[in-house]
Amino acid sequence: MTIEYDGSRYRGWQRLKDTDNTIQGKLENVISKMVGSPIEIIGSGRTDRGVHALAQVANFHTKSKLSEREMLMYLNQYLPEDIVVKELREALERFHSRFNATGKKYQYKVWNHWIPSAFHRKYSYHISDKLNLKDMEAGAEKLLGTHDFIAFSSVKKSKKSTVRTISEITFEKKGNMLEITFVGDGFLYNMIRIMVGTLLQIGLGQLKSQDIDRIFQGEKREAAGITVPAQGLFLTEVYYD
Amino acid sequence: MTIEYDGSRYRGWQRLKDTDNTIQGKLENVISKMVGSPIEIIGSGRTDRGVHALAQVANFHTKSKLSEREMLMYLNQYLPEDIVVKELREALERFHSRFNATGKKYQYKVWNHWIPSAFHRKYSYHISDKLNLKDMEAGAEKLLGTHDFIAFSSVKKSKKSTVRTISEITFEKKGNMLEITFVGDGFLYNMIRIMVGTLLQIGLGQLKSQDIDRIFQGEKREAAGITVPAQGLFLTEVYYD
Repeated sequence: MTIEYDGSRYRGWQRLKDTDNTIQGKLENVISKMVGSPIEIIGSGRTDRGVHALAQVANFHTKSKLSEREMLMYLNQYLPEDIVVKELREALERFHSRFNATGKKYQYKVWNHWIPSAFHRKYSYHISDKLNLKDMEAGAEKLLGTHDFIAFSSVKKSKKSTVRTISEITFEKKGNMLEITFVGDGFLYNMIRIMVGTLLQIGLGQLKSQDIDRIFQGEKREAAGITVPAQGLFLTEVYYD
Repeated sequence: MTIEYDGSRYRGWQRLKDTDNTIQGKLENVISKMVGSPIEIIGSGRTDRGVHALAQVANFHTKSKLSEREMLMYLNQYLPEDIVVKELREALERFHSRFNATGKKYQYKVWNHWIPSAFHRKYSYHISDKLNLKDMEAGAEKLLGTHDFIAFSSVKKSKKSTVRTISEITFEKKGNMLEITFVGDGFLYNMIRIMVGTLLQIGLGQLKSQDIDRIFQGEKREAAGITVPAQGLFLTEVYYD
């Protein structure tokens, strides 16, 4: 399944006990009713509370005889309006949304004008002051490639690798909206929101692009920039071979 | 002032007694506090409950010594997030937002795909079935020009003229979103929503473009199409000489 959701009123992707106020929980409830047996779905990864998706990927296993189109119609009829299954098709039995994902694309939206926007307010982060895009691009350049991103994450020191590879960071200005796009093989907890916070502080002159070297070396979360709000973040693509 | 608002949670533009859940009411409250005396604002026209605006125009009279920029900052600080004053400048004393308006542009958004949209759901009208755009364009052609639009309105027969001139109707498809734009010297109560409803029924084959002649001649509201929901409608421009 390819799933679009407005994360505003959810506690994130991952199902929690004692609450179904999660995207995974809502989907599992409706899918289980549809096929008549309890279903657990496998997402490509979690998204945090308030984060949106244009194309999250998830799979499940069922013996149901319903056609792909029947399932798609059922799901969009019974899911809440802010969760939409855009595509659904049979996969190879061994397909696993998380283990087979080779990379992800995320987009972060910044409304950059001193006059706010009535329509974009819930789907972007508002920065009134002018951003120096050249400096931000220089900072982004330093984030590219393979690094230990522990300082750019809310991950506690653990045995799991915190090394990731970012292959692409692009900036696109559409009117007053600045869209920052990240492509990488994977992202740590809060990693994009902290990278964006750091880049924005560079754009505001509060940090310098060279500080990024220092942040990587120090491996301390406190050295990096702020964690920007979830509402500006969109999971826009999951890559598979 | 040029004002943008998300009309979703308001009872429309016009201030009502015993409630300030209107755009005009919210603006007047904040402007009155700002200048220290009760202010009545004049809008270019009403928008109905749930209708949005990208550029509503309104004016007021004050002896306040605050600068234009100070006012703009104050207003956007104290207005609810879904109402934004985008521009504010001193006008000629005789300027009147309603009497001086020479025309208006409205846009109606239709999400036309059998899969709904999680993000556009509150700002468009969802039609699953395919629309025949050629037929809709033929229908729009017949609405253009000067006519008595009484049948395309919720206006009760009165002495006021129900003759209006529409100078432009255009259709633009952006992905799954169909945007229908109307430019005219003025629009009657519900007129755009009924014209859109009629055009959509033509697009679905439930009405024919030739039916529009018959609707004009009969002058009966019942002959025209449905009134589509307010949530797809945006006031996008008010014209002045």
